[in-house]
Amino acid sequence: MTSTSPESAAAAGETNDPIHIRRLDLSDHETGFVALLSQLSACPDLTASEFATRFAELAAQGDDHVILVAEDTTAREQRIRATGCLFVERKFLRGGGKVGHVEDVVVDAASRGRGLGLRIVRRLVEIARDAGCYKIILDCTPELRAYYAKCGFVEKGVQMAVYF
Amino acid sequence: MTSTSPESAAAAGETNDPIHIRRLDLSDHETGFVALLSQLSACPDLTASEFATRFAELAAQGDDHVILVAEDTTAREQRIRATGCLFVERKFLRGGGKVGHVEDVVVDAASRGRGLGLRIVRRLVEIARDAGCYKIILDCTPELRAYYAKCGFVEKGVQMAVYF
Repeated sequence: MTSTSPESAAAAGETNDPIHIRRLDLSDHETGFVALLSQLSACPDLTASEFATRFAELAAQGDDHVILVAEDTTAREQRIRATGCLFVERKFLRGGGKVGHVEDVVVDAASRGRGLGLRIVRRLVEIARDAGCYKIILDCTPELRAYYAKCGFVEKGVQMAVYF
Repeated sequence: MTSTSPESAAAAGETNDPIHIRRLDLSDHETGFVALLSQLSACPDLTASEFATRFAELAAQGDDHVILVAEDTTAREQRIRATGCLFVERKFLRGGGKVGHVEDVVVDAASRGRGLGLRIVRRLVEIARDAGCYKIILDCTPELRAYYAKCGFVEKGVQMAVYF
């Protein structure tokens, strides 16, 4: 057998996949991460110092707070094309159980339709399961039900909010 | 004027309100807190050591993780009648904004209809606002929409979940 399946090629690191999914890094202040978030919500730019402070606060949570980013390694400039966040909530119920919360999933408008968001969300689901969470949850608009169903999510309730 | 309004009596600490709302304490392993949570979700009892470990993990989060309990000071035994949790999520968006998440609100079946849950949720909303959160959110069943509307919550989206 000389043929190579895509899986074995990927396992051997021989994949040509131009998308690299990794954890957010301090250097991502320069790769458009905050600008990408502005496609989801109001998001004024942060100074390098402000970014570093928040990064350090979240990094202190270790694997209880994971931000993944998808980087296009073929782009001339290092740019983030998609992101998603998982944080782990520790509870007293369920025998001291843990719940994964998915937040701030966004794909750059010019990079949609390539499955980047789904790849990130699926990875976050794996991380939550491997961390021993008994469930992973997220809130979304009704139009996104089918999108998240592709990652195994089912509708469970309603999200309520107070804005200050 | 010799009459005393309920407000001024409360301000002077002269209230006869038998309900004391306070933060969860390590000693609440003995006051029925875990048993109360079992009215909300599967909740096997925790040993004193397991309870202390989880308590310490959450206490390390300081004011970013607050569990309130309502204690009936007139009961023969010290018992928790209601509880609710708030944790603060720190984000990069909204200028490094913060979001309050309400979790695990439960009122003892024998103490419902006294407004204990509403008092706890309203207090959690105040804490989130005072902490500088730009919003506070929670997930609930559709039947509880009107309940949380009494605390100012409006429906914003759908909750999706994967159970492992």
